[in-house]
Amino acid sequence: MAKTIVLLSGGLDSSVLLYALKYEDHECIALCADYGQRHELEIVSALAIARDAGVKIVSANMAHALGPLFANAASSQVGKRVDVPTGHYADESMRTTIVPNRNMLLIALAGSLAVSVNATHIAYAAHAGDHAIYPDCRPEFAMAMRNALRLCNEPGLMLVTPFLHLTKAEIVARGHALHVPFKMTRSCYENRIRHCGLCGTCYERREAFQLAGVEDPTTYEADGANRERMDV
Amino acid sequence: MAKTIVLLSGGLDSSVLLYALKYEDHECIALCADYGQRHELEIVSALAIARDAGVKIVSANMAHALGPLFANAASSQVGKRVDVPTGHYADESMRTTIVPNRNMLLIALAGSLAVSVNATHIAYAAHAGDHAIYPDCRPEFAMAMRNALRLCNEPGLMLVTPFLHLTKAEIVARGHALHVPFKMTRSCYENRIRHCGLCGTCYERREAFQLAGVEDPTTYEADGANRERMDV
Repeated sequence: MAKTIVLLSGGLDSSVLLYALKYEDHECIALCADYGQRHELEIVSALAIARDAGVKIVSANMAHALGPLFANAASSQVGKRVDVPTGHYADESMRTTIVPNRNMLLIALAGSLAVSVNATHIAYAAHAGDHAIYPDCRPEFAMAMRNALRLCNEPGLMLVTPFLHLTKAEIVARGHALHVPFKMTRSCYENRIRHCGLCGTCYERREAFQLAGVEDPTTYEADGANRERMDV
Repeated sequence: MAKTIVLLSGGLDSSVLLYALKYEDHECIALCADYGQRHELEIVSALAIARDAGVKIVSANMAHALGPLFANAASSQVGKRVDVPTGHYADESMRTTIVPNRNMLLIALAGSLAVSVNATHIAYAAHAGDHAIYPDCRPEFAMAMRNALRLCNEPGLMLVTPFLHLTKAEIVARGHALHVPFKMTRSCYENRIRHCGLCGTCYERREAFQLAGVEDPTTYEADGANRERMDV
């Protein structure tokens, strides 16, 4: 049985990944990082998902340490310099949601934890929908990190990315089959209690449920506002 | 002129690297990480070296964040579970000085800083003497990380490792020619004011000066003890 560190953000993809690996009998330890993300409420979701899945979770509270590194970042998700863009992921504006070198940093943290606890595998939920905007979700980046993890320690670590060529809709379908409590997951780039329904990841989340033909349990602020207007 | 993030520990190798890159007209920013290392006094050296070199230094205070990740690590350099081994680097016991996945983590941090400040290059001072014990100082690991950094962002980052095939003696010779203030650098794995003279990195430091034919300005505790005994 593989002992596996699963990068768990509290979002839809990494939550389904956790349940999928559990289903495949991986002994999972979730790793959740506070890197100063604007959408820090996702950490609450990560803790809830790990608890529901019966998996131990380790938190890395990096926000303070990363503050000086991200101080000049032109990112909507760390620091206050840039607002969260609205609209579909395909839009050029979505590039401002990139967190500088985030996935290499998270994979490296997972590697440190893996070596410390003698885990052999690391898993992250990069998927096909992220490829266009996020370089660190693309197959060639994942392959490069797989190679680096194989060499960073003796014995080397194995990077597992089962969703690399799946669409988000296919991940929703997979999660549905695994009875993932989607309601507990959180995708929104804003940090309000309800999903905003307007940012790129809210668009993508909603679309994924529709394409998968799975009921979306998410309450979106944008819908509420529309309903209220219609009610008048 | 390349804008370059230099991983600066305060040790001999990374200090020479900083001066060497400055000499080659890189616009350097030093990055120094507190990862909870036993030998945290090296951070004082890093600050002093950056100041002497006239280079801006960014500190990443990761000790708190990494505590839970390193809690079970069988390393003499993080946590209190294992004592620092004494003797030459070639000894098997030196493997306990490995910090879990340290260099991937530091390179990833450098990548985050590089993207944030629009730097194009990252440099670290892996050298030939480290290859036997430290997987994350070997050429194949450096090449894998070079590939990953090239792909982690658009535009990609370039990893620079000019000492990869140099011995530590050759680095000392290089530093001597560049007038590096060796006295300000710190190699020891213990955390006392003076170098212990007994741990692997003290052995290696002393040997490197001897082989390079450069005067070693370091005061080693072990020598002092011997002298005192002889004085009696």
